[in-house]
Amino acid sequence: MPGSLVETDARHVLHPWADLSALGKPESLIISQASGVEVTDSNGRSYLDAIGGMWCVTVGYGRTELIEAMTAQARMMPYFTPFGDVTNQPATELAALLAELAPGDLNRVQFTTGGSTAVESAVRLAQFYFLSQGRPGKYHVLSRVNAYHGSTFLAASLSGKAADRTHFHYESGWVHHLDSPGYDPDVSTVPAEQRLAELIGGMESAIAEVGAENIACFIAEPILASGGVLVPPPGYHRATLELCRRHDILYISDEVVTGFGRLGHFFASEVKFGVVPDLLITAKGLTSGYQPLGAVLISDRIAETLASAADPANPVFSNGFTYSGHPVACATAIANIEVMRREDICGHVREVGPYFIERLRELRSSPVVAAVRGDHLMACVECRVDGEAGPTPRNQALARRVDSYCEQAGLLVRPYENLCIMSPPLVVSRQEIDRIVGILAGALDRAARDRAAGEIC
Amino acid sequence: MPGSLVETDARHVLHPWADLSALGKPESLIISQASGVEVTDSNGRSYLDAIGGMWCVTVGYGRTELIEAMTAQARMMPYFTPFGDVTNQPATELAALLAELAPGDLNRVQFTTGGSTAVESAVRLAQFYFLSQGRPGKYHVLSRVNAYHGSTFLAASLSGKAADRTHFHYESGWVHHLDSPGYDPDVSTVPAEQRLAELIGGMESAIAEVGAENIACFIAEPILASGGVLVPPPGYHRATLELCRRHDILYISDEVVTGFGRLGHFFASEVKFGVVPDLLITAKGLTSGYQPLGAVLISDRIAETLASAADPANPVFSNGFTYSGHPVACATAIANIEVMRREDICGHVREVGPYFIERLRELRSSPVVAAVRGDHLMACVECRVDGEAGPTPRNQALARRVDSYCEQAGLLVRPYENLCIMSPPLVVSRQEIDRIVGILAGALDRAARDRAAGEIC
Ligand SMILES: Cc1ncc(COP(=O)(O)O)c(C=O)c1O
Ligand SMILES: Cc1ncc(COP(=O)(O)O)c(C=O)c1O
Repeated sequence: MPGSLVETDARHVLHPWADLSALGKPESLIISQASGVEVTDSNGRSYLDAIGGMWCVTVGYGRTELIEAMTAQARMMPYFTPFGDVTNQPATELAALLAELAPGDLNRVQFTTGGSTAVESAVRLAQFYFLSQGRPGKYHVLSRVNAYHGSTFLAASLSGKAADRTHFHYESGWVHHLDSPGYDPDVSTVPAEQRLAELIGGMESAIAEVGAENIACFIAEPILASGGVLVPPPGYHRATLELCRRHDILYISDEVVTGFGRLGHFFASEVKFGVVPDLLITAKGLTSGYQPLGAVLISDRIAETLASAADPANPVFSNGFTYSGHPVACATAIANIEVMRREDICGHVREVGPYFIERLRELRSSPVVAAVRGDHLMACVECRVDGEAGPTPRNQALARRVDSYCEQAGLLVRPYENLCIMSPPLVVSRQEIDRIVGILAGALDRAARDRAAGEIC
Repeated sequence: MPGSLVETDARHVLHPWADLSALGKPESLIISQASGVEVTDSNGRSYLDAIGGMWCVTVGYGRTELIEAMTAQARMMPYFTPFGDVTNQPATELAALLAELAPGDLNRVQFTTGGSTAVESAVRLAQFYFLSQGRPGKYHVLSRVNAYHGSTFLAASLSGKAADRTHFHYESGWVHHLDSPGYDPDVSTVPAEQRLAELIGGMESAIAEVGAENIACFIAEPILASGGVLVPPPGYHRATLELCRRHDILYISDEVVTGFGRLGHFFASEVKFGVVPDLLITAKGLTSGYQPLGAVLISDRIAETLASAADPANPVFSNGFTYSGHPVACATAIANIEVMRREDICGHVREVGPYFIERLRELRSSPVVAAVRGDHLMACVECRVDGEAGPTPRNQALARRVDSYCEQAGLLVRPYENLCIMSPPLVVSRQEIDRIVGILAGALDRAARDRAAGEIC
């Protein structure tokens, strides 16, 4: 049966980010069971899941509270339309909870089905905000190189990772990419203040060039996740927010990864980076991945302006999805928040997060490690052959080897270009962190020996 | 508590298609329980649900089989990433099932989180298909006036309902809208053949104008759903498919509403309309609405071309979502298909569907009914004051009154402009159909009397 499952998958599925040159080849790893921080494949092999599903399984697998809430809601009412003036109880309650957890006056919620749809809704809302106030040109968007915001047409156009730009069509007329803001003090040749000044100068020039009267919003992950765990220099978040305020550009914080505890807080924007955005996007950890759900949190100021600028001839905010505020997903999210609060999971992350980063930083002594960076339970190890920089073919081959040695030793990290990305479930213990770092160290050693033996050339 | 729920909703939620001029006013109907074909609001009032949740609750509410499958899967494994070469068992099995149910060689599946994301993925795939074959300009899309394809930026741009075009920004450079293809023999002043010739002529001109070398795909609902249950004239589907074939334009059938039994078959494209599309979109009924899920079915021919045209430098199909093929959603869809097969729900629809339409057509004798149209369990009653055509303010006021009389009498229909749209759960019985038609007839009578008394002027 496992054999035939792999074949069925090869015959019938087009995976996200599939390698088309391997389409139809029975090579997939089928994960079929999961418990705590471990997952088990269809051959019965278990792995410590250092990627937390995909940045999202935060309270761990097999949590009875979440499963019971899901089941109870499905029994009570598995669905009803959220359109117009109809709604359901869990969506209402979750909206109030999110308003409580969110910074500033982010008190209104539009639900979606995941991260990309939340990004779409936030940007479309920003455009509507200005267009409905009679400012017709103000729909351009500022994003950044190395950003990842999803894979609908607009979200993919906002994303700025070179490797993801394949043969799709992208919007380039009104989407503009600022410089990648990652700053790594370990490897940078310029001081942080200088890099910050360059970045802010670049943003100022872009605004001048496009014209503030044409720009609706700026969208930013506080720490760029899939782009390679890139942390901007100190002061960057506040300075970009100030620029936005000065030019009447809405600031959208994409906390799909950084939210829900990964950096030790329900939301990182204000507590960690000193910014209260106009719109805040959440998904992933919102349900611990147990259910597809996303949300845009909207500031009262924006919502009130939308209401008072409502066009009497057409006052409808024609945006949203059949599954916006799905009752089963919302009930699961409520149970997830209850677990996170009861067990003070954010406190646990603030406690083990620095230990995780400190232990990972020991790996910098490896000859095949170019850099180790991250914050709390969001981290990445960058691999390199000799002094070679970036995702070169050799560096990527090296990282793939590290990944496969990890997998052999029972650890899943996320291979991406020449990076090993890690985002373990937030309930990870110190002992499990030691196990992750131990296996990774062993894999790096083996890869370094392979390299020395000329196997990776 | 119900009172405070309505206030919480008013304070914290921005609904899809919210009336912004009423934002913050505590006026929502909160649905909190559901069973069979009935839903109950937070005040304990029950309604016969003639809209099936939102075209999607097909096997009815409270189905143990679906809830048990959902729970069992959440226990076994609530999530794991579907990216790259990893997957999960229910996604694999559901893909094989869909290939079995789908027409022609539509044997490969890319999963998404709902209808809009499936539309995005299908159109992006069509663009990738041509761009990866070195045909750089071939990314334009043909859609139709009155189409509804969702509300992400691209899906909303494809949609062509005038009322939904509010103050958002839309793509207009490479999205082109053909004429609305609805043809109602009861009211049309031209014969079907003539209307068909006009529509196909219009499509030919559009292709000539844009240039076939610039058009990637044509997207079409077999029957336009939210646009007002618009049925094209006989022969339209085949003729448009032939035009697409002749010009090497991919044909995308959006069966989000028409699929999964609503017209008496798992998919309507081939059986009802004689077309095997290149890409087929499904969502809604796929899980009976119990879980957010969507999918694009891809023909083997297209998939094989994608694989053989894979760019060695960058063979990755960088499209998909964190929640693509969510195991809990896929397990629910499998249980849904099992129930539909075991109970021969498509057979039931073929049996009661014509009765539903026949009974509704009796309402044409009402002085306030302009038209009744539909197919099987997808129908609409168009309201009008005197001879006034279309969604005029008076006609809309009339339809709102009909809706509210239905609600008072315990029936939910979907108010949309001057239409009452209906899409009951597929398990609806003849008796329940009689109840729906009876209540609707009473509501129309009351509204007609109000009109005669000058109350709707
Ligand atoms: C920061 C960020 N935003 C948005 C998304 C898109 O989310 P989804 O895959 O749920 O559409 C992701 C997904 O990884 C993300 O990391
Ligand atoms: C034909 C059609 N396509 C696509 C969609 C969009 O689906 P969703 O709301 O799940 O994004 C809808 C929704 O009503 C639809 O009717």
